[in-house]
Amino acid sequence: MNKQEIPYKIYLEESEMPKAWYNVRADMVNKPAPLLNPETKKPMTEEELSQIFCRELARQELNDTDAWIEIPQEIRDFYRMYRPSPLVRAYCLEEKLQTPAKIYYKFEGNNTSGSHKLNSAIAQAYYAKQQGLKGVTTETGAGQWGTALSMACSYFGLDCKVFMVKVSYEQKPFRREVMRTYGANVTPSPSDTTAVGRRILEEFPGTTGSLGCAISEAVEAAASREGYRYVLGSVMNQVLLHQSVIGLETKAALDKYDIKPDIIIGCAGGGSNLGGLVGPFAGQKIRGESDVRLIAVEPASCPSLTRGSYIYDFCDTGKVCPLQKMYTLGSGFIPSSSHAGGLRYHGMSSVVSQLYHDGLMEAVTVSQTEVFQAAVEFARVEGILPAPESSHAIRVAMDEAMKCKETGEEKTIVFGLTGTGYFDMFAYQRFNDGQMSDYIPTDEEIAQSLAKAPRL
Amino acid sequence: MNKQEIPYKIYLEESEMPKAWYNVRADMVNKPAPLLNPETKKPMTEEELSQIFCRELARQELNDTDAWIEIPQEIRDFYRMYRPSPLVRAYCLEEKLQTPAKIYYKFEGNNTSGSHKLNSAIAQAYYAKQQGLKGVTTETGAGQWGTALSMACSYFGLDCKVFMVKVSYEQKPFRREVMRTYGANVTPSPSDTTAVGRRILEEFPGTTGSLGCAISEAVEAAASREGYRYVLGSVMNQVLLHQSVIGLETKAALDKYDIKPDIIIGCAGGGSNLGGLVGPFAGQKIRGESDVRLIAVEPASCPSLTRGSYIYDFCDTGKVCPLQKMYTLGSGFIPSSSHAGGLRYHGMSSVVSQLYHDGLMEAVTVSQTEVFQAAVEFARVEGILPAPESSHAIRVAMDEAMKCKETGEEKTIVFGLTGTGYFDMFAYQRFNDGQMSDYIPTDEEIAQSLAKAPRL
Repeated sequence: MNKQEIPYKIYLEESEMPKAWYNVRADMVNKPAPLLNPETKKPMTEEELSQIFCRELARQELNDTDAWIEIPQEIRDFYRMYRPSPLVRAYCLEEKLQTPAKIYYKFEGNNTSGSHKLNSAIAQAYYAKQQGLKGVTTETGAGQWGTALSMACSYFGLDCKVFMVKVSYEQKPFRREVMRTYGANVTPSPSDTTAVGRRILEEFPGTTGSLGCAISEAVEAAASREGYRYVLGSVMNQVLLHQSVIGLETKAALDKYDIKPDIIIGCAGGGSNLGGLVGPFAGQKIRGESDVRLIAVEPASCPSLTRGSYIYDFCDTGKVCPLQKMYTLGSGFIPSSSHAGGLRYHGMSSVVSQLYHDGLMEAVTVSQTEVFQAAVEFARVEGILPAPESSHAIRVAMDEAMKCKETGEEKTIVFGLTGTGYFDMFAYQRFNDGQMSDYIPTDEEIAQSLAKAPRL
Repeated sequence: MNKQEIPYKIYLEESEMPKAWYNVRADMVNKPAPLLNPETKKPMTEEELSQIFCRELARQELNDTDAWIEIPQEIRDFYRMYRPSPLVRAYCLEEKLQTPAKIYYKFEGNNTSGSHKLNSAIAQAYYAKQQGLKGVTTETGAGQWGTALSMACSYFGLDCKVFMVKVSYEQKPFRREVMRTYGANVTPSPSDTTAVGRRILEEFPGTTGSLGCAISEAVEAAASREGYRYVLGSVMNQVLLHQSVIGLETKAALDKYDIKPDIIIGCAGGGSNLGGLVGPFAGQKIRGESDVRLIAVEPASCPSLTRGSYIYDFCDTGKVCPLQKMYTLGSGFIPSSSHAGGLRYHGMSSVVSQLYHDGLMEAVTVSQTEVFQAAVEFARVEGILPAPESSHAIRVAMDEAMKCKETGEEKTIVFGLTGTGYFDMFAYQRFNDGQMSDYIPTDEEIAQSLAKAPRL
């Protein structure tokens, strides 16, 4: 195939878009371990989960038998506003690297939330609306998820309360302003609007907040209001299910041009993008239909898959959420300051954890500085300024392409470009000014954090 | 036609993209008046223009006979990285407005420069490279043009010196950082790197700069360097020529689905987007093939078409550029503080001016507050946060759609959505906080400014 045959951007027709999400758990031989009730240590029931999530989402969370779950028409209509996303052939990057490899990326950044987060936000808002709820609460760190949820709630006329980590609320006023423009109520966390927030403010008067604290406030805010539920943007099975639209579109676009991928690469934080992208391909591997390599890319500062333990752990620092078996660095792990806010989670989705544990997926770590080197090189030749998170995948795609240059192999490399970096220019500024630092946690730090994991 | 027949987004195939730009001047009965040498008051020759612009661009500037000018393959390859841009059917907006009108928008914001500016930036950088130049200089106010040019120069390995109005340089550090990421040299203007900058700094020590001053610095910086030329992003014929790719794609997409537009609407600053969007349709009108209405939307704070005079005027406040016959408020006109930085130009492209003068185009003004009301409403239903400039067109498209609701007419309305507002969140914040103001210049202010126009 050559430049004339494969377009720069492969767009599916709207009629070719997925009509059902793919649930890889149905095909997994070793299912992800069940969520446990933190009190009883017994598997969470649908009834229990429905106190936290919308009922339909609780069902999806527990469903590991149905491989396909129909996407409701209203969600498909919303998807058509910003999807299908393009599968881009990186001709310019290939030329720049002088590699025989063929590089493709699935670009999820062409929507106002700036990332793939909208794929699940709209689904969660839809089910909340269907259930007759008034609104939802959530937390946001860097702000992508909060933005996506604000857009989704605005579309369905739901109230949206976002607890935004105070340091981000102050340092990223523009993200906050996008959420406000979509009608969301954005509160800096910790706040005096919740009991847990007031307690933390009393104990640590000058705190700039943390994701763990914001989660606790969002959960309390939902529980204390009639007609509200808590929603979240990563880690959970339901989120990976919705994000499978990424992998399904990618596979359909590749199939359309009869392209067989050799390597699929995604950045890994909580696993929402990675699980969604690789899901359908992992299914093929499980069924023996493919031997494509799947690679998870973690920041060296927060290496849950590569240096964590595969155990039951708390999902939140407040320890109010169900226990989950996953690769984890311990729920108290504080990653060093990093500009990829979306990858700073201590654990990993149980689906991704199990796929990795079963040898169906590899994992590598990369340092922040080399990630930004790749980001700038990519931006200059491909014309898209990538999000720091996405740039982890770019780094490894470029590394794999350079290996092909050495060996002369014409491998087909596909990676997930989850979003744009327009709200991350402070990070780029640090890099442009040569002031970016890399910190890698010591074995002792990880061991100390893991020592506080729950005993079952 | 219904929802099933017309997709949400009409994407042309890459093979259907324009292979030549359309030069509406060739079809105009009354040609735009020639540029005049500010010293001799005689029409500028290609030789004279080539001292300022690349030779090929000087040729394009003067060419009012060739209707089609081939797009070089290298530029077409670059276009394929971010084009074709989608023509979107605004189903959700139609439903929200409960209008029988059919609304479409041509969305130019899905590239990292965030606007249509890249269409001309890449062409200008290409011709500079072809001529063997080392680099180009330009000015930027809000930053869209500077960003687009930085991307284009990075792609062709050209040096790019951007003089950014100091107040923007300081208040929009993120725009500046995008340019730096693309390797551009960004200098706050006025600066001590040019004679004119030093003179202004001496005279007005605390000045935060102006576009006029930045133009003067950029022109001097190009003139004083071997192998450099000055480039700019609007007003000139060459820019409108390159931007015709917007209108050509729009027309091809409409033709593909046999859609006949009744009204085409674009925001009007210097005229780059408007001229590019309406060009091919104006050609049809001139040839008697269509009676589509073309509407230019100006900010009430800077109403050059609707309240200016059609005379020869200076293009820059420094008065170093050629004189141009255009609708103008006078080169010393200072529009009130507005958040649509791209629409704050005192004059209007001579092509747009002539089309308007000949009755081929209408013009209306809208106030800032009503523009942001439309922007937020649009963002909430269509999922795209629009640039303040683009939102002028949204406002009038919505107004026209509401008129259809009254009359029951099923008109087809097309407008240009030139870009996204991700770097304009300060403006949205002002609006969200209810602190946006509207200022409309008095007749006296405009008359005083026009009194200083050159006497010929």
